[in-house]
Amino acid sequence: MPSEFDLIRRYFTRPAAHADLGVGDDAALFRVAAGMQLAVTTDTLVAGVHFFPDAAPRDLGWKTLAVNLSDLAAMGATPRWATLAISLPSVDEDWLAAFADGLFECATRYGIDLVGGDSTRGPLAMTVTALGEVPAGTAITRAGGLGGDDLWISGQPGLAALGLAILTGAEKQWPNDHSPLRALHRPVPRVELGVALRGAARAMLDVSDGLAGDLGHLCECSGRGAVLEAAALPLVALREAGADEALARRCLLSGGDDYELLFAAPPAARDDIAALARQLDVPLARIGHLVAEPAPILLCEADGRTTEITPAGFDHFATNG
Amino acid sequence: MPSEFDLIRRYFTRPAAHADLGVGDDAALFRVAAGMQLAVTTDTLVAGVHFFPDAAPRDLGWKTLAVNLSDLAAMGATPRWATLAISLPSVDEDWLAAFADGLFECATRYGIDLVGGDSTRGPLAMTVTALGEVPAGTAITRAGGLGGDDLWISGQPGLAALGLAILTGAEKQWPNDHSPLRALHRPVPRVELGVALRGAARAMLDVSDGLAGDLGHLCECSGRGAVLEAAALPLVALREAGADEALARRCLLSGGDDYELLFAAPPAARDDIAALARQLDVPLARIGHLVAEPAPILLCEADGRTTEITPAGFDHFATNG
Repeated sequence: MPSEFDLIRRYFTRPAAHADLGVGDDAALFRVAAGMQLAVTTDTLVAGVHFFPDAAPRDLGWKTLAVNLSDLAAMGATPRWATLAISLPSVDEDWLAAFADGLFECATRYGIDLVGGDSTRGPLAMTVTALGEVPAGTAITRAGGLGGDDLWISGQPGLAALGLAILTGAEKQWPNDHSPLRALHRPVPRVELGVALRGAARAMLDVSDGLAGDLGHLCECSGRGAVLEAAALPLVALREAGADEALARRCLLSGGDDYELLFAAPPAARDDIAALARQLDVPLARIGHLVAEPAPILLCEADGRTTEITPAGFDHFATNG
Repeated sequence: MPSEFDLIRRYFTRPAAHADLGVGDDAALFRVAAGMQLAVTTDTLVAGVHFFPDAAPRDLGWKTLAVNLSDLAAMGATPRWATLAISLPSVDEDWLAAFADGLFECATRYGIDLVGGDSTRGPLAMTVTALGEVPAGTAITRAGGLGGDDLWISGQPGLAALGLAILTGAEKQWPNDHSPLRALHRPVPRVELGVALRGAARAMLDVSDGLAGDLGHLCECSGRGAVLEAAALPLVALREAGADEALARRCLLSGGDDYELLFAAPPAARDDIAALARQLDVPLARIGHLVAEPAPILLCEADGRTTEITPAGFDHFATNG
């Protein structure tokens, strides 16, 4: 069995374009450009909690990095570097090679250097810490939303939750299960969008625990309330995949694993944001607005009726308990 | 049961002295001082592999951070920031509070900001990524050792391995089990020493997998061989704790969990290094020297006999397989 030292060197060492020293010493070394703030985030995926133990390792490698890049994108930061800590019940060389391929596919796509790692025996789990740069003072936090700001969401949130429902057999008869499963296994971090929204979005986060729950976090951090317009919610892809209205809404509002960007921006930025959507070829839906005072989130139907929605997002402790 | 969001906020949020944004957003934000390189390292501790599941949580909190600071110290970097990813089989509030206390005790001692985190349900394990600063070009890698350089080691390596032997009952009758158990549970990262060795040490690493194995890594990275002087090995504390000569040597050479600094420095630096040892009150033993050509590591006895020692360091896959 190869040693711990060799595992990292053999599978996770590729040339680092933006680092002075990569994998193989006690620490990696790199420089942060002048005038930049460093943005740092960390996320763990655990077998049986965040993915099925028999998940395809190539997808898992992609997703392990992608979910972290999504967090950097949500700050408007450009991702640059990452470290990987992986624990494995045993050393399966084919599995490791495929996992590394998926991880480096994502790293290459977004220009990330994997600069360090740790491998150990243990239950299957992986933790990535991703680091990015953002011009000082331009990062988009969760806290800057103002009353009257539009609320926007990227992509097709809810698809991954539908994919999970398909995988677990909780829902039957799927005319089209490709896009939900792909959304679940290969989330696309909105890196270019996040960076492009600097100066336009006033508050932002990535939706990983369901739109309702994460909107709740944005409202709480910004000290605002929110109204969502039911008719504006991006449900088309969910309907096309075969979900009825109730399931589509449930997946969208309280699903998880979306890694789409939810942001608040002033109405004056509408044209710029619409132009950005075309330019980056990323669907952006304007789904509601913030209200000035803290208040429960309201969902407004086409006929004017409103209901309060609770932020019952996907919670790893609550839902797996 | 508190939500994932609350877990991080409740137990791992303290004011960040050197960060623009800490725990609670999608990513942390901080600035790296001009002229500095960032040093980044990551290490995982898994229950049943790196510690006993019933280990005291306060010690575990300390150690989780300390082992990462040791890696930064081994580069000569000043530790500044850290993130924590923790997976827990269940939420035990007392355990979490004690773990957080131990972690912040270490963070406070060394001036570290915990800037981000992730908590999830899963087998008990924790991954810390630690970040530090080092003036560009002054980091001490494993690769700079030259033939004729002295080899130095800090502290009392082997004590932690003796502590493990005591804990597992592998060895009996201990006149003094305090210092070995303390070494195992509360390793002291040599932060001040690492920084002070900039400009003096030519190659350095931290000894976490046994002196022989880690010296092998230093030799390999520097492209050198090494000779150790048996009479110079720091065995006093091991003998005082009750270990006989054979056990003391085994703990020292192929133990683990030491987190002492092993470094190569030119003979001209001897006086400065001895002065540093007094000034920092850290024992430093000069245990041998590097030879110019790659070669097996030799152990030279007081009577002149030499034996080859194999770098059979502590390996998480090999020893737990």
